[in-house]
Amino acid sequence: MARLVMKFGGTSVADLERIGNVARRVKAEADAGHQVAVVVSAMAGETNKLVGWVRDSGALADLREYDAVVSSGENVTAGLTALALQSLGVPARSWQGWQIPVVTDAAHGSARIQRIETTELERRLGEGQVAVVAGFQGFEPERGRITTLGRGGSDTSAVALAAALGAERCDIYTDVDGVYTSDPRIVTRAQKLEKITYEEMLEMASLGAKVLQTRSVEMAMKHGVRVQVRTSFGEAPGTLVVDEDEIVEQAVVSGVTYSRDEAKITLIGVPDKPGVAAAIFGPLAEAAINVDMIVQSVSEDGERTDMTFTVTKADQARAADLLNGRQDALGFAELRANADVVKVSVIGVGMRSHAGVAQKMFQTLAEKGINIQVISTSEIKVSVLIEEAYTELALRSLHTAYGLDA
Amino acid sequence: MARLVMKFGGTSVADLERIGNVARRVKAEADAGHQVAVVVSAMAGETNKLVGWVRDSGALADLREYDAVVSSGENVTAGLTALALQSLGVPARSWQGWQIPVVTDAAHGSARIQRIETTELERRLGEGQVAVVAGFQGFEPERGRITTLGRGGSDTSAVALAAALGAERCDIYTDVDGVYTSDPRIVTRAQKLEKITYEEMLEMASLGAKVLQTRSVEMAMKHGVRVQVRTSFGEAPGTLVVDEDEIVEQAVVSGVTYSRDEAKITLIGVPDKPGVAAAIFGPLAEAAINVDMIVQSVSEDGERTDMTFTVTKADQARAADLLNGRQDALGFAELRANADVVKVSVIGVGMRSHAGVAQKMFQTLAEKGINIQVISTSEIKVSVLIEEAYTELALRSLHTAYGLDA
Repeated sequence: MARLVMKFGGTSVADLERIGNVARRVKAEADAGHQVAVVVSAMAGETNKLVGWVRDSGALADLREYDAVVSSGENVTAGLTALALQSLGVPARSWQGWQIPVVTDAAHGSARIQRIETTELERRLGEGQVAVVAGFQGFEPERGRITTLGRGGSDTSAVALAAALGAERCDIYTDVDGVYTSDPRIVTRAQKLEKITYEEMLEMASLGAKVLQTRSVEMAMKHGVRVQVRTSFGEAPGTLVVDEDEIVEQAVVSGVTYSRDEAKITLIGVPDKPGVAAAIFGPLAEAAINVDMIVQSVSEDGERTDMTFTVTKADQARAADLLNGRQDALGFAELRANADVVKVSVIGVGMRSHAGVAQKMFQTLAEKGINIQVISTSEIKVSVLIEEAYTELALRSLHTAYGLDA
Repeated sequence: MARLVMKFGGTSVADLERIGNVARRVKAEADAGHQVAVVVSAMAGETNKLVGWVRDSGALADLREYDAVVSSGENVTAGLTALALQSLGVPARSWQGWQIPVVTDAAHGSARIQRIETTELERRLGEGQVAVVAGFQGFEPERGRITTLGRGGSDTSAVALAAALGAERCDIYTDVDGVYTSDPRIVTRAQKLEKITYEEMLEMASLGAKVLQTRSVEMAMKHGVRVQVRTSFGEAPGTLVVDEDEIVEQAVVSGVTYSRDEAKITLIGVPDKPGVAAAIFGPLAEAAINVDMIVQSVSEDGERTDMTFTVTKADQARAADLLNGRQDALGFAELRANADVVKVSVIGVGMRSHAGVAQKMFQTLAEKGINIQVISTSEIKVSVLIEEAYTELALRSLHTAYGLDA
């Protein structure tokens, strides 16, 4: 007998039929003798509808009202799921964030969970009642208002609840059946990973494998919550996201990912003197423009250099306008922007103890005639920026080179 | 400077444009220096959608989950209305039932309000903030769950809030512009009443002029809340529902109403002995079938009599089945059911002090050749059951006879 948290996203609860499927899955775990807490998202499309209404109300300023409106989608699903369980003979009740409560700070729209009061929840779980918890939402006790955790926050709700309940596992049911060594739509030989470490999953999540919300992985890692990503549309086991210690034989590279959401900006002829980087990136940071990769060319004459960096495609125009407006102060000769790029990364905790991982990447790409524009590395990943047209070729070649093909 | 409660129904907040209109109306009152609390229903259609989902979830048994789901429609409207007010520069915040709280009993699905905690609300009203309250919902403190007040409960929310706040008036904005002397679709000369008493309004509401929910009128009468029924789609003043003392010159008859929702059942040849009425109506009451008018014919031979009564059209078949199943025990010869009837009523507190009101009704109908099947009277109304085909003729003739024509 174990204690489980099962989380179902919007597509898994998109209509009453799917909610019925969810109830049957939950019943199977309850029948197996497990104590089960279920976390549900809003029905697919509902949150977007509500967010649209709030936007069109002409005042996004008051995020407290945004939260009051947008949180209602999860309340509906939680109640309907509890009813579906009851109709299968499984004792169940719904819980809204304020009822538990899931206490958060007052950062409306992107609140952070501070603690979850589980005494009553645990008492009822012990009596065999399934707790159906509305995801994505919390309660700010100072003013007594509803908060939301930001987009994808239901994953965070589920992991936080699993941590608070000391659950054996947090199963995230989604529309993919696990975490793959690469995008299976591009790399047909991509394999589903049985296990992956938190660190690798974090890199995967932030690099474009949109499976789990980054914050939820951070939280799982911090609290040691074992997370399983699995499909709600079949019985196949998914991918376990766990601590490194749980993985006996660690591959050097676990996955090859890509992100098309990058744009490259190059400042030509920047004065090569102290403080120039701060002068460039300070204003971008103030404008909340996130800079990812940065490369400064070697100065040829000791006076002028080129500075290349990437931002998201959405921020490209804003970043360019901002820097062009300061051309005189910054003293660069020309700004060149290019959105025709993709970031390709190889990820693996094994590279901490293995040399030559980056070298193999550069060599593989070179053999295929793919030019590398920018390189950045961290302890467990190597990323390169290349021309977007080479995305598929690069992914497939690297997947083979690192021995990941099925 | 006064304190006002303004209530807007589902059609008045059916989309963002209409919510914008609501906000402009509220702003006008706030700009005039009034303290304003707004009560809103769910957007038209939303509650029906949610109720449908709950029904289709196959378990109506747990009304706590019904309430958790169905209450969400009002939360959305409350938040959107607060945002619309803010975008007009009016300070506003939304309040869900549990946040105030609106404390109710635990009769989920049709809870009764026990008290409303107004301290914080009044403090904020005093600071010029408009309170936008989600109607229809409350909070049951024992188990900490959401309750709803039953269909049309937002009227009750508004009146209860007006009573708790000691508001000068409770304006119910709806899709009609007031209470008329009769149904204007039938009686073209019907006039809008400037004022009407609580007692008359109660009779109007329960007799088919679907303007205000009966419970809300009872509550207004009990607490002396002055209610105004007015349209949300124009500037015309509406009808004030007030205490009799506020009406200086009271007409003998204030309105002529009708209800098509009646069906007549006659038991022929019932034994004329003590206890027979109890034997007939006891089982109907147990089956929650509401009996309205009852007439027992004079027994001709002292042994057998006929018993005629009305139920709603929806209950007709069930009532007939139930009684036919007990034919032997009850000893009647035959059951005749007829849904081809309408109940027409004249209503007016003035008839307490005026004789001849009923006589004028009978005479007017007789002159038009309309046969009266059943008669029932109360202190302030006379109702007759007639053949449905005569509805329009009866209404128009009576409207003229009582001097109500414009």
